Amino acid sequence: MILGHFLVISLALNAGFLYRDYCKGKHHYQEFFSFKNECKNASLTLLETSPPPFSSSSSSSKAFDGIINLDHGDPTMYERYWQQMGDKTTVVINGWQFISYFSDVRKVCWFLEPEFANSIIRLHKLVGNAITEDRYIVVGTGSTQLFQAVLYAVSPPNASEPISVVSAAPFYSSYPLITDFLKSGLHKWAGDAYTFNKDEPYIELVTSPNNPDGFPRQAVVNQNQGILIHDFAYYWPQYIPISSPADHDIMLFTVSKSTGHAGTRIGWALVKDREIAKKMTEFIVLSTIGVSKDSQIRAAKILQVVSDSHQYKGNFKEGKAFFEDSYDYMARRWKQLRDAVNVSKLFSLPDFTSGSCTFSGRTFGSQPAFAWLKCEGEIDDCESFLHGHKILTRGGKHFGGSEKYVRISMLPRDETFDQFIERLSSISSS
Amino acid sequence: MILGHFLVISLALNAGFLYRDYCKGKHHYQEFFSFKNECKNASLTLLETSPPPFSSSSSSSKAFDGIINLDHGDPTMYERYWQQMGDKTTVVINGWQFISYFSDVRKVCWFLEPEFANSIIRLHKLVGNAITEDRYIVVGTGSTQLFQAVLYAVSPPNASEPISVVSAAPFYSSYPLITDFLKSGLHKWAGDAYTFNKDEPYIELVTSPNNPDGFPRQAVVNQNQGILIHDFAYYWPQYIPISSPADHDIMLFTVSKSTGHAGTRIGWALVKDREIAKKMTEFIVLSTIGVSKDSQIRAAKILQVVSDSHQYKGNFKEGKAFFEDSYDYMARRWKQLRDAVNVSKLFSLPDFTSGSCTFSGRTFGSQPAFAWLKCEGEIDDCESFLHGHKILTRGGKHFGGSEKYVRISMLPRDETFDQFIERLSSISSS
Repeated sequence: MILGHFLVISLALNAGFLYRDYCKGKHHYQEFFSFKNECKNASLTLLETSPPPFSSSSSSSKAFDGIINLDHGDPTMYERYWQQMGDKTTVVINGWQFISYFSDVRKVCWFLEPEFANSIIRLHKLVGNAITEDRYIVVGTGSTQLFQAVLYAVSPPNASEPISVVSAAPFYSSYPLITDFLKSGLHKWAGDAYTFNKDEPYIELVTSPNNPDGFPRQAVVNQNQGILIHDFAYYWPQYIPISSPADHDIMLFTVSKSTGHAGTRIGWALVKDREIAKKMTEFIVLSTIGVSKDSQIRAAKILQVVSDSHQYKGNFKEGKAFFEDSYDYMARRWKQLRDAVNVSKLFSLPDFTSGSCTFSGRTFGSQPAFAWLKCEGEIDDCESFLHGHKILTRGGKHFGGSEKYVRISMLPRDETFDQFIERLSSISSS
Repeated sequence: MILGHFLVISLALNAGFLYRDYCKGKHHYQEFFSFKNECKNASLTLLETSPPPFSSSSSSSKAFDGIINLDHGDPTMYERYWQQMGDKTTVVINGWQFISYFSDVRKVCWFLEPEFANSIIRLHKLVGNAITEDRYIVVGTGSTQLFQAVLYAVSPPNASEPISVVSAAPFYSSYPLITDFLKSGLHKWAGDAYTFNKDEPYIELVTSPNNPDGFPRQAVVNQNQGILIHDFAYYWPQYIPISSPADHDIMLFTVSKSTGHAGTRIGWALVKDREIAKKMTEFIVLSTIGVSKDSQIRAAKILQVVSDSHQYKGNFKEGKAFFEDSYDYMARRWKQLRDAVNVSKLFSLPDFTSGSCTFSGRTFGSQPAFAWLKCEGEIDDCESFLHGHKILTRGGKHFGGSEKYVRISMLPRDETFDQFIERLSSISSS
């Protein structure tokens, strides 16, 4: 059971299997988060956490026997852009600020900082990726907490059985773990939405574009008793063409994957129904009595600067507008990856239909935050195969899919990504 | 059931019953967090959230018909000290910092910022209120999240029945709500520890000094199958004499009640057992994928300045050392309260035995963050009685105690506290 628990962490975090094989031998999941001293250089290297992030040690990623860890989705790619922006996103917080639990008691979500709410509305209007009118905004400690808040808010409180929670496979590997880890009597994971055929209420998670495979998604269960949760963590114009403003009942977003600031732990929900917003707020009060004001203020500043970088370009001589820069980054990385894959017969990648982006005016195919790589031919366990080449990825089975697939993060720092491309190319040609 | 849910929020938050009676009529709990516009001035006033905190409007607390809300424990008393400290606790965070999920992967709690860990150790050594040697530090989004993390960590994962969670009455009103709100199969609230007599494993919460009544506490269930959680939110020298460094297996602390920074949502646990610290970390990963780095950095700065204010007094000409200033504040408030109560035959307060404080060298009786006020004589429902005098408190029944008692926050801003004393005195003499 302990083994199971640590597997749980691994998947929930997107932090992957960096430790077990290299430090303690394969299958020692229980040591996964121990980061023992005898292996600390390895874990540091693998997780890329040695500060400063990219000014030093070009050899750090090679320090532990050349392991390249792309299992988790740590968005350190974005550090470079924000460093180029200099002090534009610097926040200063005085000691006497944010003493109180309360932000704006007139709001359903009374711990939501008004300036963060304003920055969210402004950014959605600019990008055109979601309707904000007639919505309640609920802030969360990342969209992970908001997902749980929604489950709590929409699960029938007095049902004899917990409500089923489904998502079309391949689905985000954390959904089943988060749904079930407290053995809640309110909700239970019920697997792949494509196979759900019970005539009873259910909750369907729709992640669009999808994690892990990057495709746009719509609900697949064809029943009228369903409650839909739309996870739009990746519905931003560096990853996918914005086709129209999303207009659903419950929509989740996160700073982590839009601007890269995972360490702030800030997400937000746009919620049409007042009672659901109230119950989500109730969950967050019971769970953490609100959400860090400091991080909300910081996220507000960052989102405002993102909007400014597009609306007042003249003031941003330091670099390009945020979504232009990050679009170019993703485009370049996907070209590198496709080039490496194309010279080989060992792998394949999803093909994405081109679409027109209402935000940028560009026509392009998706360039997701994760690559859903398939091992072709006789390679049945793609994760193990790449593992043999010291590339750590997350295997398809964790997403309710096939072991022929792995999910690969496209958001590490440049150095790590370039090493990965080099490594993959060397496998292809070997 | 909806009614029940909103009662849940109220208690969990310590935010009390500010709204139902005055805006929507008594028992309309479901409107408790709606803060509708028609009553927004009232709710703003009651919650004291109108910025700036104390530079403006001396009449703000009188704006809504003189209601004084001391139901919740919002520690705004501390704003004044931190404003006097000027820029000593100002934090500056650049846009490219804290992008990553990770802080220090060599630690069990890999999202714990090293400088926050250092500030915790330094402060405990200075104050002498807890042993930090051979402990794992786990950071949480407030001690509320850490409490849940401990429950998860110590509950048997495969038991046929959820483990019983108990605490001696009167107990913190949130414990039962937080334990049960997800209908977890892992743990269940089992009430007053004094009446628990089952011969089976259990978890006992020991809050010392206790919320609501301020007394020092020890475990009361006399069995050998118990797991103890010590909540030391109030074990600081402004509230109670520090008798010796606490030395228990699982100890919880929070910034909210030590320095007053509730809005940062930062707490920490000192944990002896490595496996428990790992499972707590696992819980926080599944719950929120770590804890705001921004708030950790801010909390680190604040705790360091608290230590500096005692160790380098010469540099702090702006004001007194933190625990001296806050001790004096609490002493003054408790004297005011006792004076008001003593002239009356209507109320009484707990008597605390004097003790010597190893930190300050002073001998004093406790001066808790909450007053556990008893209505004497024929007043059976103290909350309603005070409510009739427009003083909002939390009745004893929410703490598993008698309705003869109410809990009153001692930590509001000066203006509110002074009004409360004036009001209470006028009741006494009427």
